[in-house]
Amino acid sequence: MLTPFRQDTNSLYLTGELNALGVTVAFKTIVGDNLEHLTGAARIAIARADIVVFSGGLGPTEDDLTREAAAAALGVGIRRDAEILTWMYKRFAARRMAMPENNARQADVLAGAEVLMNANGSAPGQYIDTVVGRHRKIVVLLPGPPKELKAMFEAECRGRLRATLPDRHLAKRTLRMALIPESQVDARTAPIYKRYPDVETTILAGSAEIQLHFLCAKPNEREARARVDELAEKVEQEMGEAVFSSQGESLEEVVLLMLGLRHMTLAAAESCTGGLLSERLTAVPGSSRYFLGGAVVYADRLKTTFADVPEELVRSEGPVSEAVARALAEGIRRRTGAAVGLGITGIAGPGPGAPGPDAEKPIGLVYVAASFAAAPGFAEAAKVVETRISGDRERIRWWASQHALELLRRSLLERV
Amino acid sequence: MLTPFRQDTNSLYLTGELNALGVTVAFKTIVGDNLEHLTGAARIAIARADIVVFSGGLGPTEDDLTREAAAAALGVGIRRDAEILTWMYKRFAARRMAMPENNARQADVLAGAEVLMNANGSAPGQYIDTVVGRHRKIVVLLPGPPKELKAMFEAECRGRLRATLPDRHLAKRTLRMALIPESQVDARTAPIYKRYPDVETTILAGSAEIQLHFLCAKPNEREARARVDELAEKVEQEMGEAVFSSQGESLEEVVLLMLGLRHMTLAAAESCTGGLLSERLTAVPGSSRYFLGGAVVYADRLKTTFADVPEELVRSEGPVSEAVARALAEGIRRRTGAAVGLGITGIAGPGPGAPGPDAEKPIGLVYVAASFAAAPGFAEAAKVVETRISGDRERIRWWASQHALELLRRSLLERV
Repeated sequence: MLTPFRQDTNSLYLTGELNALGVTVAFKTIVGDNLEHLTGAARIAIARADIVVFSGGLGPTEDDLTREAAAAALGVGIRRDAEILTWMYKRFAARRMAMPENNARQADVLAGAEVLMNANGSAPGQYIDTVVGRHRKIVVLLPGPPKELKAMFEAECRGRLRATLPDRHLAKRTLRMALIPESQVDARTAPIYKRYPDVETTILAGSAEIQLHFLCAKPNEREARARVDELAEKVEQEMGEAVFSSQGESLEEVVLLMLGLRHMTLAAAESCTGGLLSERLTAVPGSSRYFLGGAVVYADRLKTTFADVPEELVRSEGPVSEAVARALAEGIRRRTGAAVGLGITGIAGPGPGAPGPDAEKPIGLVYVAASFAAAPGFAEAAKVVETRISGDRERIRWWASQHALELLRRSLLERV
Repeated sequence: MLTPFRQDTNSLYLTGELNALGVTVAFKTIVGDNLEHLTGAARIAIARADIVVFSGGLGPTEDDLTREAAAAALGVGIRRDAEILTWMYKRFAARRMAMPENNARQADVLAGAEVLMNANGSAPGQYIDTVVGRHRKIVVLLPGPPKELKAMFEAECRGRLRATLPDRHLAKRTLRMALIPESQVDARTAPIYKRYPDVETTILAGSAEIQLHFLCAKPNEREARARVDELAEKVEQEMGEAVFSSQGESLEEVVLLMLGLRHMTLAAAESCTGGLLSERLTAVPGSSRYFLGGAVVYADRLKTTFADVPEELVRSEGPVSEAVARALAEGIRRRTGAAVGLGITGIAGPGPGAPGPDAEKPIGLVYVAASFAAAPGFAEAAKVVETRISGDRERIRWWASQHALELLRRSLLERV
């Protein structure tokens, strides 16, 4: 965790779980496998916090020093636990392996600790509820691998903490909006959420969407839920159709759900996004009921081969044009027999558009189109949106897929 | 950074940069916007490290407390800098805005600090090279937004640190391997890299690939480079064709490069990966020269529409079968006129395969196929790989795309 390579995910998980129990996370510290550093950091942590959770360093190697550091910081001894040793011998025997002698270290338990079983690995955790000076301190040792840590926290730790902490019930809610600036969301919603000081509101911006997280803790669940729902409803009223999700669903999930409710199927012809839109849709389990597939028409020739875009149109307007986007959407819809077709074409960079009509068009210019088959009450119809996306290739492609999904969602809202 | 939502990326960037300067990162601490907590953490950090870098908390609001905390921890005063104030007034005037009074706080400078200009925002950084007790300490205050932090580190900070630190030159190298267990890589390479104690070797596993990072610091660059290259070469000899990248390139970049060297074009027909393979390839700038596109044949009908897979074959063998994978690869190649076609079909879950021949096939069963057009010296040819991938939908899809790229790479190795 002190290299430039590894993202820390355990602490995000633990923060969410501790918040849900009413615990505020005030400090996170990352320390290397050095007994002096670890013991120092453990001392500081135990001095300044009521609950200290360690993750990692419970393995069998000489670098696994969390037990020693925590014991030294707490000023308690360590004993080798016969029960854990037996369990470990059996675990190895079951795999027809001899237990390396080093592994016995994993049976070292701090005085006063309860042992936490590890369902997914060989390192047991430890839970110490003790008094240091005159202050009650809870110290928890969890294994580092995220899968082991999560399972152990859920099975062995959450209940113990809940039994210790004041009764508290939590309600959460997430609203999501696409393609809207954070400053606009904040300016419009701050006057509302500031009137709910008992609800913690977090605004997160990124990936062409804004998330509003609401969190409220009350001694009783109904009250917490009511406050969060009331605030969420007022914010939804203010932001209107911009809110695509009021329970945290992703934009692709919402679009698939809306298609399902309308018994409509979808196909896509993607140029600059190169499969990203299809990938996002098919990442959703069950998407095959409403998303048929489509074509990645990266080479101009394939725009004709797979979506019947007239060659002449590509030549005269350029592949990155309103007319080609519309033809892609319509062509892929007809070819696949879907109710809706989406077409995306744009200049993702870093190079400029192809020679010909596109040569002078700016990087980041994107057209997204939706084409709807005739249906009872609705004539055949198409919509095209032109947009300019700033940033690098990755950003342009992501925002383009977001524009296509949002165009589809807004269009479906009108087809109730 | 103390919510469950935000990934910390600044510290990874800073760790890489500091390592490159020969500085070992021993501690990272995350603290909330609380003056007491921040000052305490700053005191601890300055006591235990020679160089302390703060990021964030340099803005104009009352929550921006890094200046105050660092000054208190160092025991120095703060003055309001007239030059920065003028620069800030001008910056606001240029945007035809009045500067809010609060912003003047951004002109507060610690005694003895050099001011670091911010090319991308309004918060200047600070660089303090001082003596605390009898120890030289360097304390750096950088802004929190990653774009501002990086630009400021590069322009204002790296040079100052380099001038201070002992002369040291760094050589790095990354080898990458796909679809091979970490334990096997470690068992085969540890006897080699352990003979190079002056090269720091880090093995990273994840996303169906293993990365070996080598890092060596020497007073002279040629020596560092020679050590890293010698070790990399020996590891490459041991691992052979498993190494797809010897300079850190991604698997998709390598495959596109290999296609380019052979003047070959590629198309893909994806079922269970739903566009992921195409998306990965088109994420590489310049990919359009060798990747034509293809089809996302999620619905069975589209396997026939876009890749000419006989309906009868899908019915008799099931869409997830060796025969259909082969037909997809061959069909998409012929349809697009590409030199190579890739076909992917599998059961990504969480649900089972479709009724019919696939109903009894296990989740995670994937077939990838490559079909090659006849070329001078080579007859028309096809290869199919059957594999069982464990894990969830996301993992199965990613590994499937990795299998397809690796099959293509290995096949291209034989076509020199």
